[in-house]
Amino acid sequence: MNTTIETILRHRSIRKFKDKALTDEQIETIVRSAQAASTSSYIQAYTIIGVDDLDIKARLAELAGNQSYVAENGHFFVFCADLHRHEVISELHSQDFSESLESTEKYMVAVIDAALAAQTASIAAESMGLGICYIGGIRNQLDKVSELLNTPDRVIPLFGLAVGYPDQEPYLKPRLPLENVYHKNGYQQNDQLYKKQLEEYDQEISAYYHERTGGKRKETWTGQMAKMLSLPKRMYMKDFVEKKGFNKR
Amino acid sequence: MNTTIETILRHRSIRKFKDKALTDEQIETIVRSAQAASTSSYIQAYTIIGVDDLDIKARLAELAGNQSYVAENGHFFVFCADLHRHEVISELHSQDFSESLESTEKYMVAVIDAALAAQTASIAAESMGLGICYIGGIRNQLDKVSELLNTPDRVIPLFGLAVGYPDQEPYLKPRLPLENVYHKNGYQQNDQLYKKQLEEYDQEISAYYHERTGGKRKETWTGQMAKMLSLPKRMYMKDFVEKKGFNKR
Repeated sequence: MNTTIETILRHRSIRKFKDKALTDEQIETIVRSAQAASTSSYIQAYTIIGVDDLDIKARLAELAGNQSYVAENGHFFVFCADLHRHEVISELHSQDFSESLESTEKYMVAVIDAALAAQTASIAAESMGLGICYIGGIRNQLDKVSELLNTPDRVIPLFGLAVGYPDQEPYLKPRLPLENVYHKNGYQQNDQLYKKQLEEYDQEISAYYHERTGGKRKETWTGQMAKMLSLPKRMYMKDFVEKKGFNKR
Repeated sequence: MNTTIETILRHRSIRKFKDKALTDEQIETIVRSAQAASTSSYIQAYTIIGVDDLDIKARLAELAGNQSYVAENGHFFVFCADLHRHEVISELHSQDFSESLESTEKYMVAVIDAALAAQTASIAAESMGLGICYIGGIRNQLDKVSELLNTPDRVIPLFGLAVGYPDQEPYLKPRLPLENVYHKNGYQQNDQLYKKQLEEYDQEISAYYHERTGGKRKETWTGQMAKMLSLPKRMYMKDFVEKKGFNKR
């Protein structure tokens, strides 16, 4: 196993960082790594906002549900789906791209592009001995986050990425059984088999929490999912995304 | 610079592979790497379909616009946004999650989860000396791809990933200027500056193509984008995604 795969398999989210800022050189390496990711038809439909201003960080932490590590880290990145740049190209070329830019297809392209860049940034950071945590919490109140970060139409902040020197050593969280996630030559739709696999996974996760918390937690994975999915969240998103000029047709 | 970052910065898409299949061990390492990626609230909302059946590969290549490297590679993966698994959990727990599962928010979560997994798989493969190419072309006719791969409701094949031993040595394609993609402490909306940066980038890209093709190609980046965006593509996507139970509310 090579060192890259070792880095990848050792991943766990870090939620407590040392009080040490990343250097400009580290930030540049992370951003250049993000940019090296694959991009759909060369479209490069994302923007990365780096945040080191303490007031902005504090406000983002508050908006993301009072997660301290949004403010306290080595550097905070916000990955945005961005087709505003292509709106500018529309002006440069005096052509109207609205139909393309407002399509669900191009929304998917921009979201995927941003995610590929972010994950490349994450692996680069982890290879440098840094820890990372994705912050979906910035989607709790995207209108306020957009206002705070001054993002125009055709730009949507998708998630944050806290990066820094780890000040904790969390356990690796077991993933779904490989055969549940990886299917051969077609989707193996067999709900009975799925249920059996999920029940076995539930036992593994329950034992995992029990052991790691000295018996305080013992919930199952499907139990966690049921709790989460029974409470619909961020239901304003469809309107918000459309209002920003995406996913409209 | 460490070897992981070297691997990342050396990325270019490979569109011609040697006739040598990946071993089961290589495939497993790639899938386990994908699974180690971050996942939103532990939701693991994706499935990976591995394709080595030659007939299925040939049909996928045809559906993706006759791209030979979809059929001719070491292994072909299809990354799917998947909330069907969570529909099964809904049955296991006798709870209705429709509102959550059909939300734009959860569609974004599933797409992002699948992309993070795919990019981790890609970097793992590249670290092993393999080449990769994302295949967005499978979205040309998603109804037929879904039928071919037997994907149920609440599952959408997002893109393919061709992996194999490189049989070509393409050049690295220059990315947008870092300062165009990376903004500090907020979105720096300055369309005049954007235009200036894009014009400089256009010159760089034009010179790049001119040099690499002995003068045969000399198009600019914004020219490529204008050409692509003036022809709306895959406009069936909004209906298709909704029909599959995503992005509905």
